[in-house]
Amino acid sequence: MSEVREKAELAKKSSAQLAVLTTEQKNEALSSIARSIERHADRVLEANEQDVQKGIDSGLSKALLDRLQLTDARLKDMVKGLETLIELPDPVGEVLESWERDDGLKIEKVRVPLGVIGMVYEARPNVTVDATGLGLKTGNAMLLRGSSSARHSNTALVDVIRHGLEETDVPVDAVHLVESAERSSVQEMLTLNDLVDVIIPRGGAALIQRVVRESSVPVLETGAGICHIYIDCDARAEMAQDIVVNAKTDRPAVCNAVETVLVHTSWAERHLRSLLELLRERGVDVRGCPRTQSLAPFVKQATEEDWDMEYLDMVLSFKVVDSLREAVAHIHQHGTRHSEGIVTDNRETAEAFLQQVDAACVYHNASTRFTDGFEFGFGAEIGISTQKLHARGPMGLPQLTSYKYVLRGDGHIRGGGPTSC
Amino acid sequence: MSEVREKAELAKKSSAQLAVLTTEQKNEALSSIARSIERHADRVLEANEQDVQKGIDSGLSKALLDRLQLTDARLKDMVKGLETLIELPDPVGEVLESWERDDGLKIEKVRVPLGVIGMVYEARPNVTVDATGLGLKTGNAMLLRGSSSARHSNTALVDVIRHGLEETDVPVDAVHLVESAERSSVQEMLTLNDLVDVIIPRGGAALIQRVVRESSVPVLETGAGICHIYIDCDARAEMAQDIVVNAKTDRPAVCNAVETVLVHTSWAERHLRSLLELLRERGVDVRGCPRTQSLAPFVKQATEEDWDMEYLDMVLSFKVVDSLREAVAHIHQHGTRHSEGIVTDNRETAEAFLQQVDAACVYHNASTRFTDGFEFGFGAEIGISTQKLHARGPMGLPQLTSYKYVLRGDGHIRGGGPTSC
Repeated sequence: MSEVREKAELAKKSSAQLAVLTTEQKNEALSSIARSIERHADRVLEANEQDVQKGIDSGLSKALLDRLQLTDARLKDMVKGLETLIELPDPVGEVLESWERDDGLKIEKVRVPLGVIGMVYEARPNVTVDATGLGLKTGNAMLLRGSSSARHSNTALVDVIRHGLEETDVPVDAVHLVESAERSSVQEMLTLNDLVDVIIPRGGAALIQRVVRESSVPVLETGAGICHIYIDCDARAEMAQDIVVNAKTDRPAVCNAVETVLVHTSWAERHLRSLLELLRERGVDVRGCPRTQSLAPFVKQATEEDWDMEYLDMVLSFKVVDSLREAVAHIHQHGTRHSEGIVTDNRETAEAFLQQVDAACVYHNASTRFTDGFEFGFGAEIGISTQKLHARGPMGLPQLTSYKYVLRGDGHIRGGGPTSC
Repeated sequence: MSEVREKAELAKKSSAQLAVLTTEQKNEALSSIARSIERHADRVLEANEQDVQKGIDSGLSKALLDRLQLTDARLKDMVKGLETLIELPDPVGEVLESWERDDGLKIEKVRVPLGVIGMVYEARPNVTVDATGLGLKTGNAMLLRGSSSARHSNTALVDVIRHGLEETDVPVDAVHLVESAERSSVQEMLTLNDLVDVIIPRGGAALIQRVVRESSVPVLETGAGICHIYIDCDARAEMAQDIVVNAKTDRPAVCNAVETVLVHTSWAERHLRSLLELLRERGVDVRGCPRTQSLAPFVKQATEEDWDMEYLDMVLSFKVVDSLREAVAHIHQHGTRHSEGIVTDNRETAEAFLQQVDAACVYHNASTRFTDGFEFGFGAEIGISTQKLHARGPMGLPQLTSYKYVLRGDGHIRGGGPTSC
């Protein structure tokens, strides 16, 4: 039997035990993992040092090395993350709905864990601990597959996690790391429909697209964010400026940062030049359509490709439009259904935008940067879903659960004609 | 451009219009489709006659011919189905949750349509109308791909549906039939991630498995039902007997019919023989493990394959077990997570079963036959999901929707340190 199937079978078996644990039992396990990480910090940092050294030797970029690197502070963040999870309510067991039929048959819809979650992720070793914490809190077993560049770190972390579980009611087999560096091991995970209930990819667009394309197991897609802000003719100049500056410069490398600003022509004539100058002063590389350029000659020309770019950087493209309709059509064509905003003092225009734009999060007079599980008050975040099935937008703990129907009768049998089944 | 992509693009475009229609506008369209079917009944029946004749010529089985055949009564059922949908509440626009942050930013979670639903289905032409009704009621555009054996019927029905839409606010392009008989046209539908939001397969296990395997678009899997009933040592003889007879014989060809009965040894010794005799009298082909056979010699031997068979017929297999644990383990190994029941007067045993068994619907002292959208009171049913993402068990109208977050601010920008994004 392959490594992947063997570990998936153990995870599946343990998921049945996990599903019936109390919140207290799961919290104790999280706490025990946190203590284990503290106790074995040196070992984890040593293993990480091996990965970092290998990364330097093989010419990994500075950005990737930074993601790979673990420090005392980053280990403390992991521990803090687990402690936060302990404080959060456990969604499992929640009765979502209940009703009784006329014949007395009682039906309850109850939250249950998903079962086995397969995580496929890149460089950052903190995902190993963060994802395991989220999974265990919601009663799920974890099958983890990190990147080979973080192999020593992940192996050490999973050892430390499993060591922590030894003293608890959560079975050690609830957490597994796939150690094979073969690409085929990912392929195998993605097709284990009998053992894995959901695959969550975390990483760059290439990884996510590969998983979406190859997986027959249902996927929770956390996709790219080509986010837009539309400045309407009725937008206040200062508000529009503050929102655009915040949405671009607060943290340009994340998915909820704005990438393209659409500007109504009448607002553009009055205020666009000073907005562009301000952005340039803040170090933003500004690109624009010919109408934008005619208002501010220092703006570089935006090509067709710009409208489909997730810059993840201090770059912002501008397009002047003649109407709400044109703005919505541009977003429909180039957006990734992540986060889209309008700035306007006209309520009707705002409501039309909010209704017509199809995205996980739509904003009126606010920065797109709020698309975040913590900002939403979820206390934890698995990622931001850009698909429409199961969960959309920021995902918290309830999004790692399913439900089942529990029916209690007293000898109830079904009579009469068939309806659907 | 291929037929599939062209039609998917038109559907996608129309889905933006559909999403903002009122319930009244959508109901009017459903009513207009119903009238169009009544008006063009002869044309539909004529087209269907061509398919049936072709089916007879090519040696289609009697069961398949029956599914293919349309009659006045079946057309009336379609019309009645549409009229039922008009009466049902429209889930779109429902505010699922709403809250306000301390800084005054308001967040609303609102139900929205999925967008474009791709249906891949077999013989029954009624799916063409039923699925379209469900999809339009929930504001979704439909891309339909029926089987080639029903090609004339489906073409006529979609023509009649689109004709009905002409007089309404629902765009005609909201409903398309893929006419190509090439298998590659299905393949193409399953990978149109930019245009199709969800694929729903309806048909036999082979079709569903193919779709699950090949689709990169998210799938709503409506799977097979290998359902079990466990008769505990504390089960009343008559109740157990009534439930098993109902769950097997009421409608053996459907997914919620029971396929295997697990019997506690002490109940078996007292009552199993008479249950087996009763089932034989009712025309059920009874198979069993050696312990079952030793109690009733007329029982055929069940092979290992029997435990993994969805008979969909008047066949039932029996296995004697020594404990709840053994019953749960058997279900875990052989069940399809559809519907599983226990018969017992012992509350504790019942609760342990309900909690430990992982299935869409778990039953105490009731027939598994209740797993049905209409029996659940949903008023409509898309199918019964056996996956855990998005929806599980019977799916009604709300399961054809997603949600989006609508955020309303007054110049809100994000400050302070980054959390997750």
